[in-house]
Order: sequence, then structure tokens, then C-alpha cells
Amino acid sequence: MSSESASPSSMQATRQRLMSIASHLRTGSGRMKVVVTRDLGPDAMPLLRERKELDLVVWSENRACERAWLLEQIPGAAGVLLMLADKVNEELLDKGFLKVVSTMSVGYEHVDLPLLAKRGVRLGYTPDVLTDAVADVTVMLALMASRNAKETAGVIDRGEWPNSTWSPFIFCGPQLSRTPPIQTRTAGFLGFGRIAQATLRRLVPFGFTHCVYVANPSTVPNPVQDAAYTKQFNLQSVRRVDIDTLASASDVVFVLAPGGDKTRHLVNEAFLRKMKKTAVLVNTARGTLVDSDALAKALKEGWIWAAGLDVVEGEPNVTVDHPLVKEPRCVMLPHIGSATFDTRLSMAACAARNTLAGVFGETMQAELELKGTA
Amino acid sequence: MSSESASPSSMQATRQRLMSIASHLRTGSGRMKVVVTRDLGPDAMPLLRERKELDLVVWSENRACERAWLLEQIPGAAGVLLMLADKVNEELLDKGFLKVVSTMSVGYEHVDLPLLAKRGVRLGYTPDVLTDAVADVTVMLALMASRNAKETAGVIDRGEWPNSTWSPFIFCGPQLSRTPPIQTRTAGFLGFGRIAQATLRRLVPFGFTHCVYVANPSTVPNPVQDAAYTKQFNLQSVRRVDIDTLASASDVVFVLAPGGDKTRHLVNEAFLRKMKKTAVLVNTARGTLVDSDALAKALKEGWIWAAGLDVVEGEPNVTVDHPLVKEPRCVMLPHIGSATFDTRLSMAACAARNTLAGVFGETMQAELELKGTA
Repeated sequence: MSSESASPSSMQATRQRLMSIASHLRTGSGRMKVVVTRDLGPDAMPLLRERKELDLVVWSENRACERAWLLEQIPGAAGVLLMLADKVNEELLDKGFLKVVSTMSVGYEHVDLPLLAKRGVRLGYTPDVLTDAVADVTVMLALMASRNAKETAGVIDRGEWPNSTWSPFIFCGPQLSRTPPIQTRTAGFLGFGRIAQATLRRLVPFGFTHCVYVANPSTVPNPVQDAAYTKQFNLQSVRRVDIDTLASASDVVFVLAPGGDKTRHLVNEAFLRKMKKTAVLVNTARGTLVDSDALAKALKEGWIWAAGLDVVEGEPNVTVDHPLVKEPRCVMLPHIGSATFDTRLSMAACAARNTLAGVFGETMQAELELKGTA
Repeated sequence: MSSESASPSSMQATRQRLMSIASHLRTGSGRMKVVVTRDLGPDAMPLLRERKELDLVVWSENRACERAWLLEQIPGAAGVLLMLADKVNEELLDKGFLKVVSTMSVGYEHVDLPLLAKRGVRLGYTPDVLTDAVADVTVMLALMASRNAKETAGVIDRGEWPNSTWSPFIFCGPQLSRTPPIQTRTAGFLGFGRIAQATLRRLVPFGFTHCVYVANPSTVPNPVQDAAYTKQFNLQSVRRVDIDTLASASDVVFVLAPGGDKTRHLVNEAFLRKMKKTAVLVNTARGTLVDSDALAKALKEGWIWAAGLDVVEGEPNVTVDHPLVKEPRCVMLPHIGSATFDTRLSMAACAARNTLAGVFGETMQAELELKGTA
């Protein structure tokens, strides 16, 4: 994870020396200015505060950092530690001479990568540390969608349990686990990175037998790797497939690909129409991957059984009249994938360490390779 | 599972012959009368309907069978196929000369076992077939309780997401998975039968390292068996412990013991006070095992993190002013543990086959051993 970005050209090197000088001049104290857009709490903040050579500027209110404040602080700063909501674009980068942008997130769709590469600014992010927390929520949503958790919990919340009539098939849903007479269970992954594989590992003892996945089209198929996965996960097969096969073969489709324009609405009406009627769709990646209107139609008309979403297009602007909020078979959570104390603390600490490494020119815990994006 | 009950004494044998004769006489057709308290659906009912030697009487309404109707039908019946809500007591058994009671449930707390044994009536039930479905819901509830699913889904249902302010630790809960820097995870089981072991098997890839369990006190500790479990589940240890250790050592306590007077309120105030503040309690067995008032107090005062309940004392009479329904950290479901199409169909088919085996004096798919209960 700790890969250095491309060696700066001599022009860039010159520019970096100027930046460093500029930073020192602007703080007027010989210290490096670092801007932090959220208080990271009592466990992670000391990593930054204890460094006396830093001039730390922190947005201390318990709400998202105001853009105007952030833009005002960037001049003279060597580093900025920011969140998914803080756009890193020309407007921001033009304000100063940053050495490092450190985002407390695994995603970086809020960052203009080519521009960062062009300006010789390093980018730290926080992959890996959230894999387990997100995989947990992914399995939870597959279970909740299959087992009608929204509808059935609602029966109790609305006080309807006393008057509901038990019958042999009441509240029934499809079963995630394979149990006789079920012969096979296929997990499908749109994207097959760290979180997808951590999810698959958790599904194995539920009796899953097969896995199909769609990978980044810029990579080449690798049957040898698929055979290794088959053995590693103790399944009957793991196969890279096209997106139509993913839709039609899966009992559960897990959306775990990066967001952005290239993957927008990969799950659309055509995809949903190809899915099994008893299948469920789980999205714990980015809302833009799934066409919300198509999904609402699929649920309303019974093309698929149910959906479990931790993310949705246009979040957090999701109101009670949103078509998916109204669907009883659509379990929705407010983007809590990485929301465990352990994981958020690790993310905060990783972002703090990346910031320090960036301003002091050291190796980061996790740096994104920017070569080729400029 | 197909164990025959104790050989009837010669008196019982005589009585059984009389019962059989009586059954034939009463239907007046030479056929055996069988009473069924719920329509089992188009897949399971034919198992009974195709047997022309049966005189089938079915409660056909889509609501619980009326007691008066059931009592009226028992005279002359050789067998009855019934549900958890239908009490099998002296009142019912006095009405006729049943050869078999077949319950579509794994539990049999609605059945007077000693009386059944005394009268020489066989009891069929439906264990095993629901193990996977219940284990799935058990894991789901552990995840939902840890990850604040009731509170966070509620944020969306109440339209609060657009105005909620993201912060690094918002919506956070303890993490079910072990991930660095977490060193250990301990699953605790109150009862360590089929469903508990199926649950534990599912937890292993979440990174659980240890298991503690409390077993039926009438059985003797077996360290050799525990060592075998440790190896089988690939854990650092599996240990039978006392109930205090179960409470204090577990990150999740799973209640998976039988209901009834002997296990009533095993999870009480003393137990809950010994649990870790970050631990969760999951009950997918029987509501009577957990003292609801003590649990509500534990959640309100933060003795434990959260609870996930598929069952609750006094169900289904649980209204919106129930103290647990009001707790935001108490995820509640209306007893859907076995509610998958596959499992309920298998349960219905098993109950039908048990009924047939009972009336025709054959080996059942699953018969409860009644020896020693009389």
C-alpha cells in the first residue's frame, strides 16, 4: 500500500522546494501549517497535536467544514486532512502550495487526480482498515433483504404483531444459506477487490457453492487466478463473467466497485430484468452504481426479491417520499459501512499518519499511485 | 433422529389396539381420521391428501385454529398435525385416542410430554430442517444489534438523513469482526446444540477466536469433546463454562436453549450486569429465557451495547409501548427464525410424514424420545 508516486521532474522538485519555503514563510514560525476539516477525536488528534513542528488549524464544529473556511485556510498550508464531502479541485489547489492531501476515506471520487498529479501533490487515503467493517454490513444487508427485515421489524414498530395471524408461510423469504433440498448458492460480485473477497469469505459457511464476478475491464481475465480463488474459498467454482451472466447467475448480487462516471448505473433496468426473481441486490459501495428509479420499479413489479442499500444516489438528500424509502423490500442504511469505533479510529489514525508522512516527505501508510492520471 | 419411544407395556399395547379399532369405527369408513390445524400449502398438503386411506379434516381458514373446533374434531382421530399455538394437554388428549401428535415446530413446550408418554401417544416434531434458517437470522441479529440497524434505518425512515451531520464517529457501534488492533473475539452460547453450532460455524470467518458455552446441567463436562470442537471450528478454544463466565467473557451472547420453566429468566439482571458494556445479546430461541424488564433496564442504563431478539416473552402480545420496542438499541423481529420458503416447506413436509408414520405405525422422520418423561 505504501507506494511512492512517480519521481517528480526537476521542475516539480524545484516547485516543491519553493512550496516548502512558502509554507514556512506564511506561518511565520518556521512550522508547517496543516489544515484538518474535522476533529478526529481524543484518540487520533494527539498524533497531530504532539508534533510541535506543526501549526495545526482544525475545523472544530460538529458539522461539515464550511467550504469558505477551508479555502481561506489553504494558503500557506503544507498539508490538508479532509473528508469525502470536501472537494479537492482547482478552486482548492489554486489557493496554495500543498504537499499532501490526506483523505479519511477509501474512496477518492471527490479528488481531481490528474490535477493532483500535475501539481505534484501526494494523495493519502485509508483503504484496508475498513474492509472488515464494510464486509460485515454487506453480509448483514444480504440477510436483511432476504429475510424481509424492514417489513417484519415494521410489524412490531407499528404495533401490528398482536393482530397478525400466524400461518405456515407468513413473513417468509428466500434463504441465504444452502440447506437440503437446495443444491447450489451463487454469490455474484460487481467488483472483486478486498471488500468483495472479505464478504465471500464470510459467505462460505452459509453454504455458498459458486462465485461469479465482474472485474475492471482494463484488466485481463486470469483463469489461473480464478482456479486459485476456487481453492482458497473452498467453492465449486469462482469465475470472471460478463455483466449479463453476473445478473442472471447470482442468488445475491453484491455491488462493490468504485464510484465515478465509468461505473455509473452499471445496475440499470436491463441488469435488474435479468436477475432471478428470488435474488437480492446489495450495494455497499457507491450510490451512483445503481439506477434508483430502475431499482424501485424492479422491487415494485417483483423482478427481484429485495434490495439492501448502505448507499444511494444523491445521499444524504433522501427523504421519506424517495421511491426506494417507500419500498417495503428495500432495506436502507445511511452509509454506515465503516461505522465501527475500531475502524473509524484506524481510519482517522491512518489519515493523520499519511498527513505527517506527506508534509515530512516520508513513506505513507497508504498512498494512492497517481502516475498515469495526469 | 428417528428414535422409537419406549416399548409400550402390554397394557399400552392393548390400549393401542383399542384406539385403532375405535378410530376405524368412528370414521365409519374404514379410513383413519387425521386432523390438521393449518393448511400446509400446495406443496405439502398432497403428501396427506394423496393417501386415500386417510379421512382428512383440515382447518382451512387463514388464521389460528379455534380451540373449540380442534377439540370437536379429536374424537375418532388417529393423528393430529398441529402448530406451536395448539396446546396438547389433558383437555385435548381426553377427547379421543390419538396414536400420534405431530407438531410443525422444533419446540414442544406446548405439549404435555409426561401425559403423552403415559397415554402411549407418539410425538413427531421438526428439528434439523430449520437449523440453517435460524442460524442465518441469529447472525443477522448479532450484526444488526452491533451496527445500530434499528437506529440508523430509523434515520432514513423518519426522513432525518438530509439534516443529519456526518462526523467521524457518527452511527458507530462495536465491530463484530475482529480486525487489527482487535486481538480476540469470543462468542458465547447459552445452549450449544445444532443451531448454536451452525451459528458458530458462520462466525468463524468474521475472525472469532474463542467460544464459551453453557450446556444442559444434566450432562457432564467433556474436555475431550471441547478439544474436538476447538479443532473442528478452527478456534483458539471452545470451553464449557458456568453462566457467570458466559456473561463476562462473551462479546456476543447467543441464547439458544430450549424454553420452559427450567430455563425461565436465565438471562436476568444479575447476568446482564456481568456482561461487557460493548457486548450484544441475541435471542432466537424462546422469549421466556430472557427477563424483558431487566433487559430494558440494561439497555437504558448502558450495561450492554444492544440486543437482537427474534422472540420475546408474551409474544405476539407486544405493543408499541412495550419497554423493549421503545429501546432504540433493541432490534426486534416477530419470530421469523425459520421463515424461509425452503425451511417452512421442509417443516410442513416433515410434519406430514411424521403424521403418516404415526398413524401407520412406521418409523418417523423425527420422533421425540418420550422415555423418562412419564
